[in-house]
Amino acid sequence: MANLTPNSAYSIKIRLELPNQPGMLAKTLEAIAKVGGNVGEIDLIEQTTQTSIRELVVDAASTAHATEIIAAIQELAEFKLISHSDRTFDLHKRGKISIESRISVQNRADLSMAYTPGVGRVCQAIHEDPQQVYQLTIKGNTVAVVTDGSAVLGLGNLGAEAALPVMEGKALLFKEFAGVDAFPICLTTQDTEEIINTVVNIAPVFGGINLEDISAPRCFEIEARLREILNIPVFHDDQHGTAIVTLAALINALQVVNKSIESVKIVFNGAGAAGIAVAKLLQQAGVSNIWMCDSKGIISSDRTDLTPAKQAFAISTSGKLADAMVDADVFIGLSGPGLVTPEMVRSMATDRILFAMANPTPEIQPELVKDDVAVMATGRSDYPNQINNVLAFPGVFRGALDSRAPQITDIMCLAAAKAIASLIPTAELTPENIVPSVFDKRVATVVAEAVKQVVDNR
Amino acid sequence: MANLTPNSAYSIKIRLELPNQPGMLAKTLEAIAKVGGNVGEIDLIEQTTQTSIRELVVDAASTAHATEIIAAIQELAEFKLISHSDRTFDLHKRGKISIESRISVQNRADLSMAYTPGVGRVCQAIHEDPQQVYQLTIKGNTVAVVTDGSAVLGLGNLGAEAALPVMEGKALLFKEFAGVDAFPICLTTQDTEEIINTVVNIAPVFGGINLEDISAPRCFEIEARLREILNIPVFHDDQHGTAIVTLAALINALQVVNKSIESVKIVFNGAGAAGIAVAKLLQQAGVSNIWMCDSKGIISSDRTDLTPAKQAFAISTSGKLADAMVDADVFIGLSGPGLVTPEMVRSMATDRILFAMANPTPEIQPELVKDDVAVMATGRSDYPNQINNVLAFPGVFRGALDSRAPQITDIMCLAAAKAIASLIPTAELTPENIVPSVFDKRVATVVAEAVKQVVDNR
Repeated sequence: MANLTPNSAYSIKIRLELPNQPGMLAKTLEAIAKVGGNVGEIDLIEQTTQTSIRELVVDAASTAHATEIIAAIQELAEFKLISHSDRTFDLHKRGKISIESRISVQNRADLSMAYTPGVGRVCQAIHEDPQQVYQLTIKGNTVAVVTDGSAVLGLGNLGAEAALPVMEGKALLFKEFAGVDAFPICLTTQDTEEIINTVVNIAPVFGGINLEDISAPRCFEIEARLREILNIPVFHDDQHGTAIVTLAALINALQVVNKSIESVKIVFNGAGAAGIAVAKLLQQAGVSNIWMCDSKGIISSDRTDLTPAKQAFAISTSGKLADAMVDADVFIGLSGPGLVTPEMVRSMATDRILFAMANPTPEIQPELVKDDVAVMATGRSDYPNQINNVLAFPGVFRGALDSRAPQITDIMCLAAAKAIASLIPTAELTPENIVPSVFDKRVATVVAEAVKQVVDNR
Repeated sequence: MANLTPNSAYSIKIRLELPNQPGMLAKTLEAIAKVGGNVGEIDLIEQTTQTSIRELVVDAASTAHATEIIAAIQELAEFKLISHSDRTFDLHKRGKISIESRISVQNRADLSMAYTPGVGRVCQAIHEDPQQVYQLTIKGNTVAVVTDGSAVLGLGNLGAEAALPVMEGKALLFKEFAGVDAFPICLTTQDTEEIINTVVNIAPVFGGINLEDISAPRCFEIEARLREILNIPVFHDDQHGTAIVTLAALINALQVVNKSIESVKIVFNGAGAAGIAVAKLLQQAGVSNIWMCDSKGIISSDRTDLTPAKQAFAISTSGKLADAMVDADVFIGLSGPGLVTPEMVRSMATDRILFAMANPTPEIQPELVKDDVAVMATGRSDYPNQINNVLAFPGVFRGALDSRAPQITDIMCLAAAKAIASLIPTAELTPENIVPSVFDKRVATVVAEAVKQVVDNR
């Protein structure tokens, strides 16, 4: 616990009654500070001459830490703890999205246009000209966020129900960042064929399919087959979303150190869905020298345990990750916590770039190598250069939907990456500023525009 | 066309520029009246000393009639038709529902609670206690509106895409009338097993399944099997929604003519999904004397062409619909237009009740028998006593979701029917007032309450 920074993911809301006397709030804050809680907003709810009721937001580092903070407050004899709650759980109550009417139904006229008998005319029109479904229904702006719950975040195979909060979160971000209507589809089955069938069966309502948190290697086949069968864009965010944002960050990081994408040696650790997809997109962008490692070391042609996806990256050299990293210009980690040592980093070429994207704990803590790297990025929001898929998927689908793209191609992904990178002008590029903030309102728009241009120029 | 009443389903919006002189608007209205258009709202958009720009809503009886109305206006030499549009199609543009965020994502704290890393804690909580999915996600308030597009309204097998406007309409009504979040699922497959599999596969996100516009006899097996497999309510609205509202209307109609439900002879025409379901629920309510007819006449035990569902209603008498109707107290039509003649009606018992629910054209036009029946109801909004499923399904699901009912039982349907009937107090019961208006705000609430009481009293 001591090692972790208090953060909003573990924040609590505390309501307490304190004597209305000078110094009481200070005493509260002191007690919280003593156990390492990080105080955010402080509200005054009510006040009499005798007492004040205050509400405090306090970030903790873990649930155990939150409990410790609450206990510390309860120990203050003159204070009354009225209530406390977990803000993350509060925010999830009854879910994060809702389905709303776009028109009002106040009278018989409304009803007879939106429903029977008027709606029958619209059905007939679509039956006669199927393309009308894009104009006359939600299809043109609606994306399914599909998972089988087999690889939920870094938490593993939690199943369909437990995956739902992530899919709702994704739907929320689709709406907030790009105005896309997205709906979560969590499947009870983890069988490749069943998943493909089910998605094909429900596809008519959707203008696009965003696959999410489906474990490798099934995710490759599911995506490939759905792309073949469906005439709407299919996008596996864990693969292509990560690839787009990583490439965007790499383009700018290389500019910072003044190296060319064609010349660098890049070492990957992690050859799962994300690692493979990032490596493939980097090849499309001009990278030729890739050393891929998995938990067994360098993916070399000697090995007999390789899946076809890994085999495509096999090289003649064998060895461990540490061997691969010698003289590398770039390290890209999509693996697990703490797998990289400072020694490995120092063995790299000069002006080294480190993307340690394992979540929530990176391959190496940035603090450990802060003087040894030229540019460092992670997947975390509490360090500079967060490589976050939110930079890509909302705009990619916005562009794909608006241009009625039948699929999302590598060229669209490359264009999206360049668009994201372009938002940091050369003059503003620094080792700590290689990707725009996820709250930069321009991101989704420029990504959508870039994707649309690719489609329009076909 | 001459026979149909102009209505909102075919209404148009006309914008025109007319000289700003007395009598010009009157002239416009006269021209529209001459070709039988029905003028609704009239807006004054802009006015100068020379001209007025006005927008008129005009109900037509058909698209051909709408064209005729537009032509009539174009003929007025001094008027300029600026634009005209079909209001039903206007209202459907880009669909009738949207997916909205229930929380805002303005900063990193919001993002780290609603999405990674905070959301992971919520996923873990559901993984450890699956029942938490009802508190911490949209599941507890979300219903899938599922169709295969095989029996869209009365229009037939239009397929998945063309069915979507109806399903969106249903979702709209779920929200407007009962605050239920409903999402349309339109399936490409019409295979019974595939439909069952697909619905089972996507069930985790939903607290209930509303089946819609799936043709008989597949709908029976699909519903029965899904009820068996799933632990959430499954409801085929075409069957049970219709049954509930019909029974509600019957309870009140019988009170108007002072007959008991146990004693009456009821003739059905139409032994499809709706007819069979209504007959079954009426039996549960105490009806014992049912004569069921289909397109071949009375469903009698002599016949060799009966499905199991029809066989359950076979009686020893054979004959045509006309034979069945002699001395009947109640006629319930869920069949096709114009299948009942005034003679058939006059052969019924005294104080006869006629529910001619074929849509959009009833089994017999009310005008033809207005002096021959005690109580008449239809499925249309332009006659008294509209038997409309909107009275049932929003409240039924509201009650089922709120009480976490694992299924919807006959007893819940009976309770819902009685609740709807109870909204017309005895003192207000008249032959033209046996069911509440669909815009009566009390309906969904009393239905939900009645359903919940059944669940709570289990």
